[in-house]
Amino acid sequence: MNTSEFRRRGKEMVDYVANYMEGIEGRQVYPDVEPGYLRPLIPDSAPQEPDTFEDIINDIEKIIMPGVTHWHSPYFFAYFPTASSYPAMLADMLCGAIGCIGFSWAASPACTELETVMMDWLGKMLELPKAFLTENAGEGGGVIQGSASEATLVALLAARTKAIHRLQAASPELTQAAIMEKLVAYSSDQAHSSVERAGLIGGVKLKAIPSDGNFAMRASALQEALERDRAAGLIPFFVVATLGTTTCCSFDNLLEVGPICNKEDMWLHVDAAYAGSAFICPEFRHLLNGVEFADSFNFNPHKWLLVNFDCSAMWVKKRSDLTGAFRLDPTYLKHSHQDSGKLFRSLKMWFVFRMYGVKGLQAYIRKHVQLSHEFESLVLQDPRFEICAEVTLGLVCFRLKGSNKVNEALLQRINSAKKIHLVPCHLRDKFVLRFAICSRTVESAHVQRAWEHIKELAADVLRAERE
Amino acid sequence: MNTSEFRRRGKEMVDYVANYMEGIEGRQVYPDVEPGYLRPLIPDSAPQEPDTFEDIINDIEKIIMPGVTHWHSPYFFAYFPTASSYPAMLADMLCGAIGCIGFSWAASPACTELETVMMDWLGKMLELPKAFLTENAGEGGGVIQGSASEATLVALLAARTKAIHRLQAASPELTQAAIMEKLVAYSSDQAHSSVERAGLIGGVKLKAIPSDGNFAMRASALQEALERDRAAGLIPFFVVATLGTTTCCSFDNLLEVGPICNKEDMWLHVDAAYAGSAFICPEFRHLLNGVEFADSFNFNPHKWLLVNFDCSAMWVKKRSDLTGAFRLDPTYLKHSHQDSGKLFRSLKMWFVFRMYGVKGLQAYIRKHVQLSHEFESLVLQDPRFEICAEVTLGLVCFRLKGSNKVNEALLQRINSAKKIHLVPCHLRDKFVLRFAICSRTVESAHVQRAWEHIKELAADVLRAERE
Repeated sequence: MNTSEFRRRGKEMVDYVANYMEGIEGRQVYPDVEPGYLRPLIPDSAPQEPDTFEDIINDIEKIIMPGVTHWHSPYFFAYFPTASSYPAMLADMLCGAIGCIGFSWAASPACTELETVMMDWLGKMLELPKAFLTENAGEGGGVIQGSASEATLVALLAARTKAIHRLQAASPELTQAAIMEKLVAYSSDQAHSSVERAGLIGGVKLKAIPSDGNFAMRASALQEALERDRAAGLIPFFVVATLGTTTCCSFDNLLEVGPICNKEDMWLHVDAAYAGSAFICPEFRHLLNGVEFADSFNFNPHKWLLVNFDCSAMWVKKRSDLTGAFRLDPTYLKHSHQDSGKLFRSLKMWFVFRMYGVKGLQAYIRKHVQLSHEFESLVLQDPRFEICAEVTLGLVCFRLKGSNKVNEALLQRINSAKKIHLVPCHLRDKFVLRFAICSRTVESAHVQRAWEHIKELAADVLRAERE
Repeated sequence: MNTSEFRRRGKEMVDYVANYMEGIEGRQVYPDVEPGYLRPLIPDSAPQEPDTFEDIINDIEKIIMPGVTHWHSPYFFAYFPTASSYPAMLADMLCGAIGCIGFSWAASPACTELETVMMDWLGKMLELPKAFLTENAGEGGGVIQGSASEATLVALLAARTKAIHRLQAASPELTQAAIMEKLVAYSSDQAHSSVERAGLIGGVKLKAIPSDGNFAMRASALQEALERDRAAGLIPFFVVATLGTTTCCSFDNLLEVGPICNKEDMWLHVDAAYAGSAFICPEFRHLLNGVEFADSFNFNPHKWLLVNFDCSAMWVKKRSDLTGAFRLDPTYLKHSHQDSGKLFRSLKMWFVFRMYGVKGLQAYIRKHVQLSHEFESLVLQDPRFEICAEVTLGLVCFRLKGSNKVNEALLQRINSAKKIHLVPCHLRDKFVLRFAICSRTVESAHVQRAWEHIKELAADVLRAERE
């Protein structure tokens, strides 16, 4: 394909994308296909001679779209939002063309420098403590990672290195393995499974702290675990506090947990993967109070801040903690895969922040929060249902009063009908439905329709149960 | 930005991208900027109100482009190629619009299924042993990773888990830490630094095996290290063999190393990050002989197979080795960041393989190899220069006969002149210049011009030295 054909096909693809986005509401949100559907539809090996672009574009509707879960449909209320905006798509096109791999300053100076400045812009939108910013030539700074899981792993490994160095400085006879055997990390029992995986990869123990009645990690439970583990000869070194858990968007108590971490010389990593975007609104900023105690902080603009995947924002107070752990170039803070590098991801931030403006981004967050409260009040008006966790941002956890079985049946009917898409969670022993406001284009009318639909299916389920 | 504005701006961006690609030869390949150039050029915080698209597009030429290293210029001969093709860019646009995160089959069936089939297509292009493919419902299969570094880390962690389980099964009293203290991994002294980093992250020893006169890892050196380490009570568990090293594109001797790994029960990971793409040509396939001994194999279509970043292809013989290490869904093999997921990256493979056809891809590889041999013969015709390593694929390692100092001076002149861009490497104690055929649009004329330019600068350097 030469450049003039790209001009033509590229514009056709822009229209295809625009048509897809405009018509997404008319597509069934969840596909009908069964596992293994795709293989019989395409050849079992690559063609020797080129296919035409027409063949391929036709196959998209025939082969790909029937198997797509439409994450940006206004009837998609599953998981958490995944960012999608036109400014980010435009930036991605440019990013693909420049196609530089930013593994060092020289590899593409603009790439490294724009990232540093964009992380400062974003940090200031969140009113992060100055210690996390680069602009004052301090020790802190931000870097883009691929995911919150990656950020958690990077923080854990940096904390592990730091702990090993500290303990070996005090007792030079200790081997790394002898220390690692005793290191123990903590997170709430509501933390994402990626925290457990980070412990697994890092080869250290990870213990779950029982959360309180609001699904929050509190000082007392953490303190109890610390005392028990120290008495057993273990070495606590790392705590992950979650702001906005995946299950129910609960918030660990940073103002309690933070001072303990500082006092006990444990690295505190704050994971606000979903909720972090909301902190750009002054009325939600208080949820971030206590971040001043953290060594590292992370959230995903690619979830709820209109910057398409991947763009996970991570800040640390001491860049040298990462360079120590990964032997990276000390001048510019980079991620754990430095040698492979990453594309020019900060272009997406630049386009989105400028084309929405802070006020536009705040308005977007507020609309989602308002819609979740609207759904919450619909649920509360129906005495057959209950709300299962406090609704703070864009997630509503709800269920039919009654057995798990009846709620499982309800979810199954919802996802079989495929008019809307939800996923469940478990809160303690309860099977709960999660209603997450996800799509950029979701409006009150979609939420109302979703609720009417849920009520109808609930009536069917309850009727079937009585029979 | 609404959909109709996106239609307009998207098409403008297609033209911007096309113009950039068409005019890239006229841009200085390496920028003039100094570190810190960008920050003063943009505001110190995000705008409250939206900027216009015109403002942003104007700033690209004013602020971004002056700091870009143009990786796709035909005068860029640094590092290794990074893939760039129009079909991949078109696929990326579609991928951004669908915007699904494929962390499970249900999250987007087409995403998971197309990836599995594309990895089979690619495996067959390389004539990988059937044990690595999914289509025969065997135990093996392929998965897309973000980078070769990530693939190495995943393989090392899977091997570590397997070794720990095996040793604990034999001696239940052994703790994980006691085993990890004794685990030792190996790679050639020419292996990429990401192998060392994988060892660091995984908390295991990594030892460098001295390579032979052709910069290849051989049986004898590996065997010697194994015997010494076993005698010292260590437990060898993992070997990384590199096909096409970053320094000089040398090849470890798989046919020698492979059987040792199998016999000694060590996981063999084959890293062909750059060279792997060439194995789609029958005349280069012999370089992959011995892969039948490997447990895992990886290369980067995002380097040399026209599939834009990121797309690193990894195959394993036993998917359950990864699921065991990472507790992933056993039905569909996924990567280590399963919970965060990845975009619909297989669309890029599908577009590229179909729009080029296998023959088109082979022609592209062959053209690059031919150009590197052309450069090699130019160098050989000039008695002032020497070739420093065998030229097998698209990389030529060369230098002025004489001191490192004179070669450092030559490279400095080359990169200060900024007409072409090269990076150096060290081969043993020699400072060497790497000339890598990188750009999709590089032709014989560019190589000739680059050589004339290098010769002129060499004459200057030699003259300055005599004075």
